[in-house]
Amino acid sequence: MRLALYRSLLKAGALLCALLLTASGPAFAQTGARRSIDIPNIPGYLTLKCDFHIHTVFSDGIVWPTVRVQEAAHEGLDAIAISDHDDYAPHRPDIPVSFHRPHEIAKSAADAAGILLIPGLEISRHEPYGHHNAIFLTDISAFPFWENNSKAVLDTLGSYRIAARQGAFLFWNHPWTMPPFWRSGEGSVWTAAQDTIYGNGWLGGIEIVNGRHYDANAHRFCIEKKLTMLGNTDIHNLTAYEYSIFEGGHRPMTLVFARERTVEGIRDALVSRRTAVWSGDTLIGEARYLQPIFNQAVTASAPRIELTSGKSAAFVLSNTTDVPVVLQRNAGETELEKMIDAPSQLTIPAHGSTAVQVRSRNGQQTKSLTGKLGYRVKNFLVAPEEGLAATLPVEIVVHPAR
Amino acid sequence: MRLALYRSLLKAGALLCALLLTASGPAFAQTGARRSIDIPNIPGYLTLKCDFHIHTVFSDGIVWPTVRVQEAAHEGLDAIAISDHDDYAPHRPDIPVSFHRPHEIAKSAADAAGILLIPGLEISRHEPYGHHNAIFLTDISAFPFWENNSKAVLDTLGSYRIAARQGAFLFWNHPWTMPPFWRSGEGSVWTAAQDTIYGNGWLGGIEIVNGRHYDANAHRFCIEKKLTMLGNTDIHNLTAYEYSIFEGGHRPMTLVFARERTVEGIRDALVSRRTAVWSGDTLIGEARYLQPIFNQAVTASAPRIELTSGKSAAFVLSNTTDVPVVLQRNAGETELEKMIDAPSQLTIPAHGSTAVQVRSRNGQQTKSLTGKLGYRVKNFLVAPEEGLAATLPVEIVVHPAR
Amino acid sequence: MRLALYRSLLKAGALLCALLLTASGPAFAQTGARRSIDIPNIPGYLTLKCDFHIHTVFSDGIVWPTVRVQEAAHEGLDAIAISDHDDYAPHRPDIPVSFHRPHEIAKSAADAAGILLIPGLEISRHEPYGHHNAIFLTDISAFPFWENNSKAVLDTLGSYRIAARQGAFLFWNHPWTMPPFWRSGEGSVWTAAQDTIYGNGWLGGIEIVNGRHYDANAHRFCIEKKLTMLGNTDIHNLTAYEYSIFEGGHRPMTLVFARERTVEGIRDALVSRRTAVWSGDTLIGEARYLQPIFNQAVTASAPRIELTSGKSAAFVLSNTTDVPVVLQRNAGETELEKMIDAPSQLTIPAHGSTAVQVRSRNGQQTKSLTGKLGYRVKNFLVAPEEGLAATLPVEIVVHPAR
Amino acid sequence: MRLALYRSLLKAGALLCALLLTASGPAFAQTGARRSIDIPNIPGYLTLKCDFHIHTVFSDGIVWPTVRVQEAAHEGLDAIAISDHDDYAPHRPDIPVSFHRPHEIAKSAADAAGILLIPGLEISRHEPYGHHNAIFLTDISAFPFWENNSKAVLDTLGSYRIAARQGAFLFWNHPWTMPPFWRSGEGSVWTAAQDTIYGNGWLGGIEIVNGRHYDANAHRFCIEKKLTMLGNTDIHNLTAYEYSIFEGGHRPMTLVFARERTVEGIRDALVSRRTAVWSGDTLIGEARYLQPIFNQAVTASAPRIELTSGKSAAFVLSNTTDVPVVLQRNAGETELEKMIDAPSQLTIPAHGSTAVQVRSRNGQQTKSLTGKLGYRVKNFLVAPEEGLAATLPVEIVVHPAR
Repeated sequence: MRLALYRSLLKAGALLCALLLTASGPAFAQTGARRSIDIPNIPGYLTLKCDFHIHTVFSDGIVWPTVRVQEAAHEGLDAIAISDHDDYAPHRPDIPVSFHRPHEIAKSAADAAGILLIPGLEISRHEPYGHHNAIFLTDISAFPFWENNSKAVLDTLGSYRIAARQGAFLFWNHPWTMPPFWRSGEGSVWTAAQDTIYGNGWLGGIEIVNGRHYDANAHRFCIEKKLTMLGNTDIHNLTAYEYSIFEGGHRPMTLVFARERTVEGIRDALVSRRTAVWSGDTLIGEARYLQPIFNQAVTASAPRIELTSGKSAAFVLSNTTDVPVVLQRNAGETELEKMIDAPSQLTIPAHGSTAVQVRSRNGQQTKSLTGKLGYRVKNFLVAPEEGLAATLPVEIVVHPAR
Repeated sequence: MRLALYRSLLKAGALLCALLLTASGPAFAQTGARRSIDIPNIPGYLTLKCDFHIHTVFSDGIVWPTVRVQEAAHEGLDAIAISDHDDYAPHRPDIPVSFHRPHEIAKSAADAAGILLIPGLEISRHEPYGHHNAIFLTDISAFPFWENNSKAVLDTLGSYRIAARQGAFLFWNHPWTMPPFWRSGEGSVWTAAQDTIYGNGWLGGIEIVNGRHYDANAHRFCIEKKLTMLGNTDIHNLTAYEYSIFEGGHRPMTLVFARERTVEGIRDALVSRRTAVWSGDTLIGEARYLQPIFNQAVTASAPRIELTSGKSAAFVLSNTTDVPVVLQRNAGETELEKMIDAPSQLTIPAHGSTAVQVRSRNGQQTKSLTGKLGYRVKNFLVAPEEGLAATLPVEIVVHPAR
Repeated sequence: MRLALYRSLLKAGALLCALLLTASGPAFAQTGARRSIDIPNIPGYLTLKCDFHIHTVFSDGIVWPTVRVQEAAHEGLDAIAISDHDDYAPHRPDIPVSFHRPHEIAKSAADAAGILLIPGLEISRHEPYGHHNAIFLTDISAFPFWENNSKAVLDTLGSYRIAARQGAFLFWNHPWTMPPFWRSGEGSVWTAAQDTIYGNGWLGGIEIVNGRHYDANAHRFCIEKKLTMLGNTDIHNLTAYEYSIFEGGHRPMTLVFARERTVEGIRDALVSRRTAVWSGDTLIGEARYLQPIFNQAVTASAPRIELTSGKSAAFVLSNTTDVPVVLQRNAGETELEKMIDAPSQLTIPAHGSTAVQVRSRNGQQTKSLTGKLGYRVKNFLVAPEEGLAATLPVEIVVHPAR
Repeated sequence: MRLALYRSLLKAGALLCALLLTASGPAFAQTGARRSIDIPNIPGYLTLKCDFHIHTVFSDGIVWPTVRVQEAAHEGLDAIAISDHDDYAPHRPDIPVSFHRPHEIAKSAADAAGILLIPGLEISRHEPYGHHNAIFLTDISAFPFWENNSKAVLDTLGSYRIAARQGAFLFWNHPWTMPPFWRSGEGSVWTAAQDTIYGNGWLGGIEIVNGRHYDANAHRFCIEKKLTMLGNTDIHNLTAYEYSIFEGGHRPMTLVFARERTVEGIRDALVSRRTAVWSGDTLIGEARYLQPIFNQAVTASAPRIELTSGKSAAFVLSNTTDVPVVLQRNAGETELEKMIDAPSQLTIPAHGSTAVQVRSRNGQQTKSLTGKLGYRVKNFLVAPEEGLAATLPVEIVVHPAR
């Protein structure tokens, strides 16, 4: 049971932490138990849980880089990118600016914990450009410190060019808000500045979720511009406080459908737009990814139910994942659906189940009908406000009354 | 997340309860969300979660029969048998003895909730016979009330004969203790009385777990006599209090490997000895059932690790089930195992994961070696004190140093 | 810590239950640890936690009477009244009607657990009379069974008279709804039927909370008619399911301000209208009871804060009770209040604290001012939608700037 | 309820953190709800909850100094001292040594949160001196960096002298272990080095608890040498991971009995030896402090119980604090105690209660006897392995049988 896990984790905590921090400890010991996230792999791909937007004391975060590894391991992530700002270092009186150090410091802890660590930097510009994360960098030290965005306008795109030369994967962060005014009321706006970055072929992805915020406009841009979809924390504080981790909560994350669990496997998936986003109780992504997740998440107690006209029966739907499944019945379109009374709303909790009663209306039918019931998965978003179309995994057969 | 589930369940509680109790409620509504138990199906069979030993106010339990359905649904069980005593009815001043009523009262609630309800009775005799549950009865009313075991000895086996005539499945309850003295110190003892019942072909199964108690002797009898293995609650009080249900606990239960989720499917599995037991953190059963559960429970972050002699690497093992996996390394027997340093103890929490570091010792080897690491699963018991033999699902390749 | 308590309770559960049920067990052992409810006594009175409206299998509840004692002890109550219906016994095919038996059955378990058990019956009439609980009965068997309210109208008030003759304390249950139609939309209505019962001097109290429902009209009647205020569960199902007991929830209850913790002490308090109600996060009652609770609940880190004009300071408010305190600042009326900026909203969680920052505005004042800040306690209701008036327990002194 | 608090806290988290970190935020807003610790004040003194031994990224901790304030506020502490090492700065490649900066950085966050912040430094010497915390420093920058304890032996006591000149309060940290070998098996040893420090009048206190470790020898030194007793975390990692904070756990802490909640009030109490220690489920301290805590923690449902010889009765003991109370009965010494059967063991959980049954033995007594029952509070340690002597707060009167 999940709660037993928390207790185990707590006991294991000291060991884990000691090991991560000191990078010594008894060789070949277990490096600490932790949570896993139950969202299934899909045919052909592993489902990796990733957070590509994370801060440390090296910009405006409040923890040493190793803490980010410790948090990621504890929460069951596969990969993280540390991405401190390239223009803002409020701890500079005590910590000199050094873009490559967070990654360098965290690396051995990540290796020991089996966490994939991806080199990153947040190129942070005033509007209309905004913030972009460049990840898979090969030389983070090559970037200039863009102190408080004070440099001449001529240079604005310089860091993007460096990122491009390094073959980085670039994505637009929280497109609905950007300094220096942080307006966000109207949602994301695509301007000429975005045309430039996109037109140069630099832009690979877009955050549609950042922290607790989801933006429908960003979601639309993601679909229209064929960008890779991302959801990240942009965490500055401790994840335990921000996302109720010890209460069963989880951080928002990018689900990456990768051929293998390696940095290169993640890169390949990002470039190929094989991602989805999990935030709160909502999954967001293309139907080609959400459909196989739904198929594995929801199982029925019986593959087939036989009903005589006018009779009812019950079956149980179960959900083996960490994501609840919230279903709304379609207006029945098939002849069978028109004959069946079934719940208009169904919720199958995460790691839960629910009994479903169905009844065949009394009809004049003379032959048996067979089919499945169509629903929308309201919390599996394939587009803004559009749930995934799905059928319950139970074949229903209605026989004429005799 | 599991905790979110609990909250959902609590909200859904009123609905569930109302429905179960009144057996009316808005037709075709969802009949209440509940927990599911994450122990996987195995190839060819569904893994049904069952409790075949349960009491109500009709003998010495303290709840109305419908509460047993409500508890079972809330906890994610597939099937229960109510089995009140045939000799003891302390509430008789208020509730007349009536063997068939508990089942009759609970039936419509069970149907609505999708819980399979199996007719049962506990034939309760003084030592040396002890208590036996007869389930799948066709006429519970046919049994006599054996008031306080006061009848003449000549009749002792009469109720067993009735059960046999009804084709019941009979199993021996808590064989390590029986009235009127309830001695239990020395564990289960097989006497001439058992020879009689077994010799008559009446005995199908044996409880090796009853409530919080496991008995190694009963486990040995189960194996030697080729009986069906059972683990049940024998619950009299509320399961929520007894098994910390709201804290993430679970009742002990019989896992039934059935071809279909029906009463007949369960009967077929019981007769064919396709069961195992889950109690606390321990799974008990034959290797042919525990092995496929282990195989699906434990997954690795990489199918294959390549090591050069003298180097180390890490991978992550995850566990998608509600059962923790506790591993102890075998004394390495293969040439590869002798070369590898790896943790001697490994625990993968339920729904958790752990990083594992391995290192190839410096050796004189001249060719590559390939293999897997052997462990015992200490909490998957295939016999008393004998854990399941298993290998970690990672192929390890060691290359010679150059 | 509260959670540690839950674990202790769970361990203690088996012992408690065994003892309660069997009324035997090892003599003089501890009879089971349980929760306590942290709402303080008030000057001159103990604050007893009571539930006077509870059902068992003897009417339409689903548990044996001892379970109600077990629940009450586990949840930290001081007293309960079992009050099965006098007109409805759906389990009658199995359990003959017997009004005195629930109390009789539960009594020894209550004594052993230190729970005060009060004899009761729910006189259940169709509208316009509705349901009334009669408690402190001296002979429950004296009442007739009023089967399905089928008797002649002439007898309607007979059971009230019997209750009055026995000196019972009578209160009106869930006045906003009554059989056979259970209308509740418009809230409680006081009709001629109520005039009769009240006019005869029979009516002592009124439920303003029943289960999860609070009714403002009932609250008004309570105040206008000078009735004793009650809040009870009317529990039929298990409290653990209905009120998230294991998640930190609590049942609605009547707080009784008694001179001593005895049945007679409770009776005296009820007759003298010394009660309040706790439901969810809300306390309801007269200011003379809520004020002393507030005074003991809320403490400050410093008795006195000195501020110079234009400066700010912080102090911490703590809450030692199970009831959160939600404060809304009054429009400042005193000269001092007009000079101070302070939070307009303040929440001090149950067993929590909060830091409060205050600032003196720059002013022309020439002398020091002293005073306290006035707030309304929004969740301490002294009348419908009217929070208790209170001041923060910190004296603020503002000195002129020099 | 405690759990509801956690939820409130989590919601309040973002606000708290934002405010603490930025030290801006909406002026005069509530600065964040948090837990409070329920251990009562004692007559004449406030009971302040303090941790005087804490590390940050400025030595070998892993968080920015403000995080220590955030943790303290969240956990309900009153005061902390940050005390980074004066000889060890493993983050030095990125963070230059600067002893005063942690305190300086954390100060405004502490002020806003109402946390008392005390300037400290850990003077860290190799054995036989070991580590000492100097707190209430007036000029932390005056100390030399004692790099890796590499300086000449002649200077060893220099930093102690600086501390003394600044009027610091000095205490010996984890006396059972010290670098460079960190031996700890045999417990604390008092050597000539300690004689020197103590003889110079420098030593004010001693940790008898550090992290999860308690040392009986240190406890003995504390008593014999009349030192102030301390229990601190020595936290390097996150407290949430180390002490199961979100699960209801708490860090070890020093309870300071102060005349006022100010830095000076704490200093006065430390100098006057008015402290105790809370670690896990154990309170440690002199009887003059533990006795009044016990008196307020434990209350009875009745002040007086009257028993006739041969009869029994029950009462309820409740505990309003976060500390469980574990009682063991004394061999009865008084005439009354010899007549009474009562539980030999009693546990009153934190915020819990328990029913206690007592019985008067049949005796030949001819007059009434009155008295209380004596117990030892096993988890209130007044000396190593010696629990506080206490009596149950119920007067028992035994009357002769007639």
